[in-house]
Amino acid sequence: MKIVYVTRRERFNAAHQMWNPKWDEAKNKATFGKCSNKNWHGHNYELFVTVKGEPNPETGYCVDLKEVSRVVNESVINHLDHKNINLEVPFMKGILASTENLTIAIWEQLEAKIAELGATLHKVRLCETENNFVEYFGEE
Amino acid sequence: MKIVYVTRRERFNAAHQMWNPKWDEAKNKATFGKCSNKNWHGHNYELFVTVKGEPNPETGYCVDLKEVSRVVNESVINHLDHKNINLEVPFMKGILASTENLTIAIWEQLEAKIAELGATLHKVRLCETENNFVEYFGEE
Amino acid sequence: MKIVYVTRRERFNAAHQMWNPKWDEAKNKATFGKCSNKNWHGHNYELFVTVKGEPNPETGYCVDLKEVSRVVNESVINHLDHKNINLEVPFMKGILASTENLTIAIWEQLEAKIAELGATLHKVRLCETENNFVEYFGEE
Amino acid sequence: MKIVYVTRRERFNAAHQMWNPKWDEAKNKATFGKCSNKNWHGHNYELFVTVKGEPNPETGYCVDLKEVSRVVNESVINHLDHKNINLEVPFMKGILASTENLTIAIWEQLEAKIAELGATLHKVRLCETENNFVEYFGEE
Amino acid sequence: MKIVYVTRRERFNAAHQMWNPKWDEAKNKATFGKCSNKNWHGHNYELFVTVKGEPNPETGYCVDLKEVSRVVNESVINHLDHKNINLEVPFMKGILASTENLTIAIWEQLEAKIAELGATLHKVRLCETENNFVEYFGEE
Amino acid sequence: MKIVYVTRRERFNAAHQMWNPKWDEAKNKATFGKCSNKNWHGHNYELFVTVKGEPNPETGYCVDLKEVSRVVNESVINHLDHKNINLEVPFMKGILASTENLTIAIWEQLEAKIAELGATLHKVRLCETENNFVEYFGEE
Repeated sequence: MKIVYVTRRERFNAAHQMWNPKWDEAKNKATFGKCSNKNWHGHNYELFVTVKGEPNPETGYCVDLKEVSRVVNESVINHLDHKNINLEVPFMKGILASTENLTIAIWEQLEAKIAELGATLHKVRLCETENNFVEYFGEE
Repeated sequence: MKIVYVTRRERFNAAHQMWNPKWDEAKNKATFGKCSNKNWHGHNYELFVTVKGEPNPETGYCVDLKEVSRVVNESVINHLDHKNINLEVPFMKGILASTENLTIAIWEQLEAKIAELGATLHKVRLCETENNFVEYFGEE
Repeated sequence: MKIVYVTRRERFNAAHQMWNPKWDEAKNKATFGKCSNKNWHGHNYELFVTVKGEPNPETGYCVDLKEVSRVVNESVINHLDHKNINLEVPFMKGILASTENLTIAIWEQLEAKIAELGATLHKVRLCETENNFVEYFGEE
Repeated sequence: MKIVYVTRRERFNAAHQMWNPKWDEAKNKATFGKCSNKNWHGHNYELFVTVKGEPNPETGYCVDLKEVSRVVNESVINHLDHKNINLEVPFMKGILASTENLTIAIWEQLEAKIAELGATLHKVRLCETENNFVEYFGEE
Repeated sequence: MKIVYVTRRERFNAAHQMWNPKWDEAKNKATFGKCSNKNWHGHNYELFVTVKGEPNPETGYCVDLKEVSRVVNESVINHLDHKNINLEVPFMKGILASTENLTIAIWEQLEAKIAELGATLHKVRLCETENNFVEYFGEE
Repeated sequence: MKIVYVTRRERFNAAHQMWNPKWDEAKNKATFGKCSNKNWHGHNYELFVTVKGEPNPETGYCVDLKEVSRVVNESVINHLDHKNINLEVPFMKGILASTENLTIAIWEQLEAKIAELGATLHKVRLCETENNFVEYFGEE
């Protein structure tokens, strides 16, 4: 039983702002700097979804990556692409729109859906810029 | 007199929306699709500024790229980074926030400033995503 | 009338072989080396299609890149992706499957279609590997 | 005793097809889609081989990466580059040519050879496209 | 308590040479090849620093990446950028200038400083070229 | 007679310093900043050599890129890789080691050699970092 890790990359472009509604503008500005701009800014996000499992002897696939791509698009990308993360994304409602929180929320959207494909979600990596990225392995 | 072309890359993250204020929502939606989202979306823009000139025999430089970088930051990046292109950028006021128009506007911000450095602005390339980019050479 | 150059990237994965049917195996081997392997090899090709034109004042677009993408997919990618360039691609019939010839053939597929979109085809760049690429500007 | 992980990248271009010989054409087509094309398609594969060990106090190296490169070329790349994975690769005989299976087979080619260099094979990562890759750590 | 891994990329350009002062020139040449050139060579190093921790419910951040960047610049980059690793870097004094040793030394510079930010240093990845990189997780 | 442009990428790692020997240390420091470090620094240079010509109807090649690669390695890379550009490179003797001057010098090394292959040298692009590059087309 050989366990492999298979990764699919997807992308989305979204607007967001870093803002804690419990704080006044001065504290938001002091904490988040230019990321707190009330008029929003945005990113080209790159999302890497890694699943683990054994290759199926009939197909050679751990899981059909077309299926992984479909699930990631239905559960994640369609809710985020060309959207405002703070205002429009159901699974980010009431959550600070940091890359950390978004990465965890994407994991939660995907975990059961990947299990339905017969594989195990192993890692979500979300790249905000070429210099910054976050990874979550479901650790609690 | 050997002419070289020297390029400096800079980056900015911004929000925008594709929207023609002379049209109603239906026509904007039909024309611009998800790019017309009223709640904005955004990108990691990559900007490549190319200047031409002869290397100075004293320095080996066509122009000091630290100076090019300073000028591009002062005239362009500081106005765009973590901003809303439609709402906050003086040189985009009243202009549709397409990559084409933004590339031309960046050229116009830079042309005289690069000349003051003793070089000639040759090209502005602006990449909106890994799949789409626009170049402008000042052609009219 | 400001002229901008707009580029769209598309990708395809294909098999090919370098083989001149007028030559025997020894000469093909001597000329093309391992690229002449009769059992084929393949590449992830990256295609950059650059069109030129003025931004439309109503849309800010030189041409809608979704339309460019549709045309490139219909006329080029659908014929090449997951295909054998030597055996299956109508517009490469009887043509040596070099990157040079493929780049020219892609230009010929696209030139009229891009004109129908109201823009002018300016350049086709085709990357075979990270180390090798070919560009064609329609020069004859 | 500080343990570091050292990675070497190598590349190869190959043709393959997804095909289960126990199935008829219709089932292969239904399962593998365009990847089942009988005339083959191909990829630029990127291979990352990670070994672990302690830096040698005499050389500062965990292992000489020139040696890792030599071993990877002799044992893996020379058998795959400009080849047909289904038809020509000894260590893939009778194995479905998926990235998963190829990654595991590459591990098996390398594990003992890396040990002979005094290091331990830790991971094989094989990238098929910019969107898909597989990793294997020898887990059974 | 969800644990995320957050990575910051920084870069530096430096000169070095592979040389064991206990050996004569012939043995250094035989061991290190062209990397032993007495007149030095150099690289564009890419450094990825990964820290782990829980997102702060007030900020959504595991740690402010601006702070990580400041610490990495003060403790590491400022000592390495545009420097000679063999001659000028305090924390590499007496240590062979291999990527392995440099990666470990960077870990040692950062571990306590990252702890002061309230996070835990998880990994240092140092890329010497596009083909070679080293990772250290603090394993002893 | 269709003219295509074919590009080959090669790489080298070298040390250099920006220093005008006619100036004292203070003026060098004021002009070149940290690039004037007497103990050198270095880069991973990426070199793109573009040649133009017609595809040969017998081979489909404008020029055999293996030949271009051989010429670039013999005439350029072997003199620069793992070398000190100021001290050891014959064709840079007495020339300030800027990217501009190095790009022109590489052009001069290659122009006649590419002509011997039956093609025309069109462009040399030399990338010093991911943010800075120089191009030369032989313009005087």
